[in-house]
Amino acid sequence: MIKASVVGASGYVGQELIRLLWGHPQVEIVHITSTSKVGEAFHHMYGNYKDIFDKEFVPQDLEKIAEESDVMFLALPHGVASGLVTDSILKKTKVIDMGADYRLKDLSEYEAWYKTTHESPELMEKSIYGLCEIEGPKIAEYDLIANPGCYTTCSILTLAPLMRSSAFDLDSIVIDAKSGVTGAGRGLNLGTHFTECNESIKAYSVAAHRHTPEIEEQLSTAAGRSIRLIFTPHLVPMNRGILATCYIRLKEKMTWEDVDALYQDFYKDKPFVRTLPKGSFPETKWVKGSNYCDIGWKVDERTNTLVAIGAIDNLVKGAAGQGVQNMNILFGLKETEGLDLVPVFPV
Amino acid sequence: MIKASVVGASGYVGQELIRLLWGHPQVEIVHITSTSKVGEAFHHMYGNYKDIFDKEFVPQDLEKIAEESDVMFLALPHGVASGLVTDSILKKTKVIDMGADYRLKDLSEYEAWYKTTHESPELMEKSIYGLCEIEGPKIAEYDLIANPGCYTTCSILTLAPLMRSSAFDLDSIVIDAKSGVTGAGRGLNLGTHFTECNESIKAYSVAAHRHTPEIEEQLSTAAGRSIRLIFTPHLVPMNRGILATCYIRLKEKMTWEDVDALYQDFYKDKPFVRTLPKGSFPETKWVKGSNYCDIGWKVDERTNTLVAIGAIDNLVKGAAGQGVQNMNILFGLKETEGLDLVPVFPV
Amino acid sequence: MIKASVVGASGYVGQELIRLLWGHPQVEIVHITSTSKVGEAFHHMYGNYKDIFDKEFVPQDLEKIAEESDVMFLALPHGVASGLVTDSILKKTKVIDMGADYRLKDLSEYEAWYKTTHESPELMEKSIYGLCEIEGPKIAEYDLIANPGCYTTCSILTLAPLMRSSAFDLDSIVIDAKSGVTGAGRGLNLGTHFTECNESIKAYSVAAHRHTPEIEEQLSTAAGRSIRLIFTPHLVPMNRGILATCYIRLKEKMTWEDVDALYQDFYKDKPFVRTLPKGSFPETKWVKGSNYCDIGWKVDERTNTLVAIGAIDNLVKGAAGQGVQNMNILFGLKETEGLDLVPVFPV
Amino acid sequence: MIKASVVGASGYVGQELIRLLWGHPQVEIVHITSTSKVGEAFHHMYGNYKDIFDKEFVPQDLEKIAEESDVMFLALPHGVASGLVTDSILKKTKVIDMGADYRLKDLSEYEAWYKTTHESPELMEKSIYGLCEIEGPKIAEYDLIANPGCYTTCSILTLAPLMRSSAFDLDSIVIDAKSGVTGAGRGLNLGTHFTECNESIKAYSVAAHRHTPEIEEQLSTAAGRSIRLIFTPHLVPMNRGILATCYIRLKEKMTWEDVDALYQDFYKDKPFVRTLPKGSFPETKWVKGSNYCDIGWKVDERTNTLVAIGAIDNLVKGAAGQGVQNMNILFGLKETEGLDLVPVFPV
Repeated sequence: MIKASVVGASGYVGQELIRLLWGHPQVEIVHITSTSKVGEAFHHMYGNYKDIFDKEFVPQDLEKIAEESDVMFLALPHGVASGLVTDSILKKTKVIDMGADYRLKDLSEYEAWYKTTHESPELMEKSIYGLCEIEGPKIAEYDLIANPGCYTTCSILTLAPLMRSSAFDLDSIVIDAKSGVTGAGRGLNLGTHFTECNESIKAYSVAAHRHTPEIEEQLSTAAGRSIRLIFTPHLVPMNRGILATCYIRLKEKMTWEDVDALYQDFYKDKPFVRTLPKGSFPETKWVKGSNYCDIGWKVDERTNTLVAIGAIDNLVKGAAGQGVQNMNILFGLKETEGLDLVPVFPV
Repeated sequence: MIKASVVGASGYVGQELIRLLWGHPQVEIVHITSTSKVGEAFHHMYGNYKDIFDKEFVPQDLEKIAEESDVMFLALPHGVASGLVTDSILKKTKVIDMGADYRLKDLSEYEAWYKTTHESPELMEKSIYGLCEIEGPKIAEYDLIANPGCYTTCSILTLAPLMRSSAFDLDSIVIDAKSGVTGAGRGLNLGTHFTECNESIKAYSVAAHRHTPEIEEQLSTAAGRSIRLIFTPHLVPMNRGILATCYIRLKEKMTWEDVDALYQDFYKDKPFVRTLPKGSFPETKWVKGSNYCDIGWKVDERTNTLVAIGAIDNLVKGAAGQGVQNMNILFGLKETEGLDLVPVFPV
Repeated sequence: MIKASVVGASGYVGQELIRLLWGHPQVEIVHITSTSKVGEAFHHMYGNYKDIFDKEFVPQDLEKIAEESDVMFLALPHGVASGLVTDSILKKTKVIDMGADYRLKDLSEYEAWYKTTHESPELMEKSIYGLCEIEGPKIAEYDLIANPGCYTTCSILTLAPLMRSSAFDLDSIVIDAKSGVTGAGRGLNLGTHFTECNESIKAYSVAAHRHTPEIEEQLSTAAGRSIRLIFTPHLVPMNRGILATCYIRLKEKMTWEDVDALYQDFYKDKPFVRTLPKGSFPETKWVKGSNYCDIGWKVDERTNTLVAIGAIDNLVKGAAGQGVQNMNILFGLKETEGLDLVPVFPV
Repeated sequence: MIKASVVGASGYVGQELIRLLWGHPQVEIVHITSTSKVGEAFHHMYGNYKDIFDKEFVPQDLEKIAEESDVMFLALPHGVASGLVTDSILKKTKVIDMGADYRLKDLSEYEAWYKTTHESPELMEKSIYGLCEIEGPKIAEYDLIANPGCYTTCSILTLAPLMRSSAFDLDSIVIDAKSGVTGAGRGLNLGTHFTECNESIKAYSVAAHRHTPEIEEQLSTAAGRSIRLIFTPHLVPMNRGILATCYIRLKEKMTWEDVDALYQDFYKDKPFVRTLPKGSFPETKWVKGSNYCDIGWKVDERTNTLVAIGAIDNLVKGAAGQGVQNMNILFGLKETEGLDLVPVFPV
């Protein structure tokens, strides 16, 4: 059994990690931590765990937890993990960081977008960006996994297969993304008060969202050239789900089938990507509670534009599920272990 | 492996059965049927199953399916099952009927409330009302299980433990129940059109809902005397969940602890009933996607009334989950096999 | 033009008052106050008012505001108004208090349920409980109007017409009420965080809600005897609306028509109460944005119980609309002035 | 008083017309028609009108209704109006067509996108595209007004002011639009069944929506050159509201203030367009129930892209409200007459 701990387990990502790890046949959860809830039972915060999981939060002593864990998930606010992870910790345990601290290889980008100083730049080279469908088995060679963001996972999976084709104008990318409200976490603010976001839609962080450089860096790597794109997130009155509607202009004629060939080639043997048949487009309801990313597309011949659309559950493939998938790769398990769940519908 | 078939698999209950059976370690799904969708792939109707489950609907030939199945779930409109199940079928396979046809032992009640003639009254004695927490191992002695209704499961589990106590006025019971919209199924009608039921609440079938006699019959059995009660269902703008707020007058003084003793006694060793601590009350969100029934209560000393509240997921404990639980009992498996899922939150 | 001011205009009730007063043909809004937002434009808090209403919040100086206003609405937290209203203020202006401080004539009940001391008991005799359909023109004789609560308005309007009939067992009343989330106000807490209350239903303040004594006091007056009842509020995932499902046992046989006669007699010439035809029941969607209270009922002959159901918009008839209706009565206007709006649907 | 009739009053647009016309101080509603509901009271279909509006549906005899009406609104399925409107009708009454039949001046586009033959091409020259902020007083010169579509109104209002500037690359326009479910009407289908669209988001009619040529034709006129653009509608789980997120590349440097100047110039003295201050972006909740269009924008200097976002209530400014605004213009009334409503919030 893999001994797993969750540092910062009180938020929605931590909670979803515990749901998945609890159901994982090869995992034993050893510690959950919190800074403010030490001694409190987890099921007091999350009533779904009553009579199921009786762990209490322990203090956030990472060195100690590392000693007693084979893998440690960090679900901490941005900027915290980079001050806590040490070389000594990485020698004791694998670390899967759900936050942003180790995602951007270009630290100047990190510091510009996050307006903070990175506190452990020396660990960057020991870390890998854990987008499983892209890095695959290489992930197993690292001790520190930067688990990708939710918008970024959905956007990159939708666009990466297209980056090496000369048919696309890589300077024309527009990503218009829509997220459920769990993406904003459990912290209270007026924008996520029920009566303020229910029955309404809005864009936010317009041309300023921190997932932008992450998408750009990964797509640049995929393309072998620098990519800048426009990314606009929207808040949708629903609990879970991300839909990324991506637009990219064609420089050469492409049919649906041509694009399909790119996707099939890129995602063969990738169990969590489901490309949809011609004429079908993703809906977030079909992936809820699961680690799938559904992708559909259309070539608009009138405007020579490809519209490619991806959908994920932001808390699963966009966070906890991909964390578990990374863990599976790290420990040589089947990638789907503990994640072979039918999406729950209607929910 | 238990060979299971789902007859009438195209509705929400059928779909949820397939989700749970697919994930059940001891089950192989052999057939799914439909009258109108024969030859169509299940995942065309339910996109969540893409790349997961590739069965197609076969015709509704029950004798043939019975031969090839160890257990056959019927998810059919009321009145259909009683015309299809035969003694010959019951000799070949176990039948778990998700519908109402075999629930009411008093056939005159059945025919009065359902305004139809029961077509196989001779099978009633071979059937049992499959409320697992009440009938327990006795269920294994039967070939035909009448799986309880959603409102009824929630109401009976909340009230049954009180029925043998002299402290309660059994003529005073009021059940005010609230259900999510999946309870109305996948069939189209104006009342469940999004813009007609979203952002609104209403009562329906006031003093006329067909689950009333089912609750009364079971509670009468539990009480050892005839019970009549008032039951009012409401439609709540959410996908899943039932909350039953039950009122019963006290004839004798009872404390929270006295009531607790009744519940603990009744539900000891019942893994799917969770009684909440003093001061806590159920919320449907904590049971979603799971087979749990959460129960909380308060004694109102001002009015000498017990308010007891139960919550379930209507598609799981209120339908498919209890069906699987019945199957587990029938085949001597652990009652929780395939049902040991953490409720999904927030979803 | 009536000069109206709103004290405590930053919450949802204040906002709804401003919507209605702004559209009222006989009203000019002179001041809006807040303790924490002085100097801020109202439309910065509520974007719907952009380019429509450009007032800024002024300090909460009630004596000054009273001098410059014909009527002053107080939308303050419970316990605050009783410390601010003075005899001097009441000589200068009419006061309509949207809060609870002057609602309960029995101050010991007030102090017991609100756990606070009433700071102006001497003003109670100058105040009236402003449930317009019950007090009618008598309201115009008072300077201080205690505007009823939301649950209470809906519950009392549904039950009051029955109180003088000997056919009902007045000791058997159960009110099971359901409210949208605006009832909880704009203040942040976990229970009204979108992802915590969306897609779920729960009871709260079970046998402990402060609207209970208010309903009891008014129904006792209507009945001419003391009434105790059980009241359970529930939180429904929708913005607006209250539905009160009321149960009362029959001591004598009553038909639908008998009950109808009681309602018609009680509500003749009451423009805001709509009794529904036999077989119809209220839905909150049909009253949204309006001052209507819809009422429907059924006699359950099986259990000798009347189920009577009322529906209102909690922010209109349950708060701001009734406030304006009280103002209309105070100033001798038509009761419907400024309130003759078609309910908005679907919204 | 203007005598107004609504032909095809049983759908959501018809219903919203009646709400607005009923509250309009200069209007008397004379007839409402339906093909299938003749003789039925309107308030039986829409309970919000109980005790308010007691008209019954009359047969759809347009010649007769035209004789008795000053203005006739047509809220009919696409393709029907062009077969019903005649020269004779237009001599008797003004016609405001809420449908698509007279919107596209290029009939080959109409017939290509709507896959039907236009039955009254000779009336096209008597008709005008009634986007009030663009055509203004010219509308009064016409007898047949083609009331714009919902997506189109929002998209055109957001983009039209930019069309004459050389700073924008007019070949780069992407419109990613999101609509509430009322946009799909009251007709039943699986996609708008509550449990199928609640808690999910999807794109639909990708690169194939019929509002595309309408937006293109109008923007082409505004630009003085032909424009092709990509338009993607999405279905959002909410009742009302449209948000159009528009992307357009810059060929020259533009600041927020430069863009602001274009909007202010274009929309001066237009009471229903509200441009938001720098850093603010529209939310559909702030326009609900009203005729406003809110617009906000940001220049993304990283990618030289303008993101301009518009929000309307699809049933008001996107349909019935604009219809009434057109009527006001036709009859020489103030444009805001009957439309000066504060948006309702939270609803």
